[in-house]
Amino acid sequence: MTRDRLYLYDTTLRDGQQTQGVQFSVPEKIAIAEALDAIGIDYIEGGWPGANPTDSEFFAARPDTQATFTAFGMTKRAGRSAANDDVLAGVMNAGTPAVCLVGKTHDYHVTTALGITLDENLENIRASVAHMVAQGREALFDAEHFFDGYKSNAPYALQCVLAAYEAGARWVVLCDTNGGTLPNEVAGITRAVIEAGIPGDRLGIHCHDDTGNAVAASLAAVEAGVRQIQGTLNGLGERCGNANLTTLIPTLLLKEPFRSQFETGITEAALAGMTKLSRKLDDILNRVPLRSAPYVGASAFAHKAGLHASAILKDPSTYEHIDPVLVGNARLIPMSNQAGQSNLRARLSGMGIEVDPKDPRLAGILDEIKRREDEGYAYDGAQASFELVARRELGLMPNFFEVKRYRVTVERRKNRYDKMVNSSEAVVVVKIGGEKKLSVSESFDEHGCDRGPVNALSKALAKDLGPYQAYIDDMKLVDFRVRITQGGTEAVTRVIIDSEDGKGQRWSTVGVSANIVDASFEALLEAVYWKLLRDGAPAE
Amino acid sequence: MTRDRLYLYDTTLRDGQQTQGVQFSVPEKIAIAEALDAIGIDYIEGGWPGANPTDSEFFAARPDTQATFTAFGMTKRAGRSAANDDVLAGVMNAGTPAVCLVGKTHDYHVTTALGITLDENLENIRASVAHMVAQGREALFDAEHFFDGYKSNAPYALQCVLAAYEAGARWVVLCDTNGGTLPNEVAGITRAVIEAGIPGDRLGIHCHDDTGNAVAASLAAVEAGVRQIQGTLNGLGERCGNANLTTLIPTLLLKEPFRSQFETGITEAALAGMTKLSRKLDDILNRVPLRSAPYVGASAFAHKAGLHASAILKDPSTYEHIDPVLVGNARLIPMSNQAGQSNLRARLSGMGIEVDPKDPRLAGILDEIKRREDEGYAYDGAQASFELVARRELGLMPNFFEVKRYRVTVERRKNRYDKMVNSSEAVVVVKIGGEKKLSVSESFDEHGCDRGPVNALSKALAKDLGPYQAYIDDMKLVDFRVRITQGGTEAVTRVIIDSEDGKGQRWSTVGVSANIVDASFEALLEAVYWKLLRDGAPAE
Repeated sequence: MTRDRLYLYDTTLRDGQQTQGVQFSVPEKIAIAEALDAIGIDYIEGGWPGANPTDSEFFAARPDTQATFTAFGMTKRAGRSAANDDVLAGVMNAGTPAVCLVGKTHDYHVTTALGITLDENLENIRASVAHMVAQGREALFDAEHFFDGYKSNAPYALQCVLAAYEAGARWVVLCDTNGGTLPNEVAGITRAVIEAGIPGDRLGIHCHDDTGNAVAASLAAVEAGVRQIQGTLNGLGERCGNANLTTLIPTLLLKEPFRSQFETGITEAALAGMTKLSRKLDDILNRVPLRSAPYVGASAFAHKAGLHASAILKDPSTYEHIDPVLVGNARLIPMSNQAGQSNLRARLSGMGIEVDPKDPRLAGILDEIKRREDEGYAYDGAQASFELVARRELGLMPNFFEVKRYRVTVERRKNRYDKMVNSSEAVVVVKIGGEKKLSVSESFDEHGCDRGPVNALSKALAKDLGPYQAYIDDMKLVDFRVRITQGGTEAVTRVIIDSEDGKGQRWSTVGVSANIVDASFEALLEAVYWKLLRDGAPAE
Repeated sequence: MTRDRLYLYDTTLRDGQQTQGVQFSVPEKIAIAEALDAIGIDYIEGGWPGANPTDSEFFAARPDTQATFTAFGMTKRAGRSAANDDVLAGVMNAGTPAVCLVGKTHDYHVTTALGITLDENLENIRASVAHMVAQGREALFDAEHFFDGYKSNAPYALQCVLAAYEAGARWVVLCDTNGGTLPNEVAGITRAVIEAGIPGDRLGIHCHDDTGNAVAASLAAVEAGVRQIQGTLNGLGERCGNANLTTLIPTLLLKEPFRSQFETGITEAALAGMTKLSRKLDDILNRVPLRSAPYVGASAFAHKAGLHASAILKDPSTYEHIDPVLVGNARLIPMSNQAGQSNLRARLSGMGIEVDPKDPRLAGILDEIKRREDEGYAYDGAQASFELVARRELGLMPNFFEVKRYRVTVERRKNRYDKMVNSSEAVVVVKIGGEKKLSVSESFDEHGCDRGPVNALSKALAKDLGPYQAYIDDMKLVDFRVRITQGGTEAVTRVIIDSEDGKGQRWSTVGVSANIVDASFEALLEAVYWKLLRDGAPAE
């Protein structure tokens, strides 16, 4: 049986950017586009060129992709030709192979929001789509408020989408803009559109999650006949978000009837990168990944109930709907069991440390990691710190130097020109081979600007490490991430620091404290220790 | 037309407690049970008495409720009578009016996980349910793995649920235990159960969110005929969670076909408490509420796109699927560089400031916001800071007090017991009405633990604000988020602080600096200013 081709259209960079608190930079947009392309998404919608400077800049710098790059815009305004509409020209000038134009299909919106006649709106749709097609672009028509429009005035809503279709739109995308339409209603109205003359392989679906049904409604539309799904990574998007591609893709590839009926651009190998892709987006946004996310969440295959965990040991399928490996995720079962220890041995082996399966210190490491994770540490993103914990438990960690104490002051006051200025000053006292060394540093950069207490501490620590100084001179801090793991200022702060050496090798360390400065200092110090270890510096 | 009665069954206290990281205390269970009862939930499942000490203690202390209190347990083991099964006795002894017993319906689980014959399992179901009924209890049978069981061996799965029904179970609950069954399949199998002889008004549905379809599958089961829905508040639950009642309830009460077809125990007044109920649970769990949650999330009615915001001004229904007031939520028109002057005027209007569309100060505010966003500020999630910026531009911001300087020290050293300890000490100098006030505070909490420099600063600032002190005494910090907006320790830090007053109202402020302590201080200070402004404190 030949399978129908189902197309996936990602709008993380456009609709996803409508999420409260999300504002992508150009390099972030590039990184996301490349990641989307790598898994085999068919269309990448990059933004609205001309509508804001970042989007215009991004289209100028966009990466080459296998995916069809798409610019978003709107149908021309009434009272001018498509060729003379400057907003449309801005979209066209981005030079993408495809263009998606949003237009009205709900009679009330045409007359109220736009204040034009129903016929004028039809003409705007027709002329805008025809103009894009005439310029050799693949045209998509984004039928805004289509489902609400259909319920208000079905003949007019159908006229609108037929106008786009007849003007040459490759895809007519049915949008549930306000997100309030339930799955069965989406299916019914979709069937009506197909009956009205637009074949399913020319129809797309665009759902929002305002009733928690964006995924289900998208699947219902596919079952009714549409062959393009629009969505975003991690369900980013305005209000409650868009249909979550991170959830939809595994379902389409792994679950019946979709698995047998459809083919997509996503390979099985790419599917196994889904968890990593989801985390990558959260990393870029500095968001804490949602543990309960379907398929890719850290808890998605976590078995807490005692009855479940013991059955899982006999046969994982007893309490798992799919094998987590298929989506690049992992089963999580209480630390004290055999699976936990074999994972650990594999990880140690990767660091060049071979430990006998019966070594009781394996359980010691797991206990220590568990204890630290309860305190707020996270070792997924801090491999170097994990190695230090394991080595300390195994007695394989040399003593290099000891930090006896530190003090850092942060001040804000008026300077001699009556201007408010900040300054920080740090003193770090270390003991190296019996000798005490006291270093001090301010927080100013080469332009005389204050860079804060962590900078001052970092400079004081690295100022004089005696015999170890040569090992750390090529070290620099390249990234610094802060996460508050409980609410309130009385929260625990987790700091993850990425360091880099002169050869460009990177490593990550973690620090945790109720005190944000102390958490940073711990991560800084661990980064130095790991560098000394890696480069074989002698013990004191 | 008479509407069918649809029953709501909450399992937050049992299945919800299977969420990773969730462990309710007895007082927390009592608070949640009372809140569930207040909105009109029909059944409250309190836990598994006998299985763990907290649950047993809770059943002894449970509040009197209108809702039917239910104890959870499992069908008797093979080889003993129901009356002689100690696990079953533990459940019975909790003395609840209703008892829900989980039992196997999937042939493979019977023979593999339990290791008994299919007939023994049928007998266990029959005898356990009959025993509960004989003791005068309302019995529910929780058919574990029912959908997977039906697909594996339909006749046997049906025999199991019929055995429970015929033994007198008031409800037979069809469970999609592993969460992998899609909505259409749930509907089809549910119809088959009804055809096999169990009427829909004796059937319940229990779904998990492993494919992101728990809500949709629950609705599909209701459309297929079931008349009880099981779920949890905020979708708590093992792995990806259970069907989210906080989402389902508004849909059942507000959306067709459910609104016309069904009656529930939830009144319209109770529905308006849904947002507060959702936040209350997060408060108990000390979790940051999910902004994108359907109906109740802080972003659920947030309109970021400029085009949407201008239409919302004309008629909110243009971009809202329901009136947010119905669920106790509120519309939010955040600022961002995608927003135009219409967003701005709407936002100002919401603060009680009417500005003429032609007022040139509107452009001044947008320029200032843009300039600040370039520096790293973000106003989407910091409405209170936005209001302060706008008021300053409009000349509508009173002078309350001025911070002249501050200094905070962070120290790590050995204490007298030779143990490494941290401490911070902050001095803040403010000028109020010509008078200089100097306050100092340490960073220790009531247990003598260091909470870091931001805590010390916050306490010093709030220590003596003279005539303003009474305005800020009920203020507390409830969340604190840090984002580094460039790489390296020489990055710019953005801190967003959520504050709350004694009545539970929340507001958010932002601070930005290369110095993380200074960014935090700015956000703290803005939070105080906003509170003084909101409460009409007099200018100095």
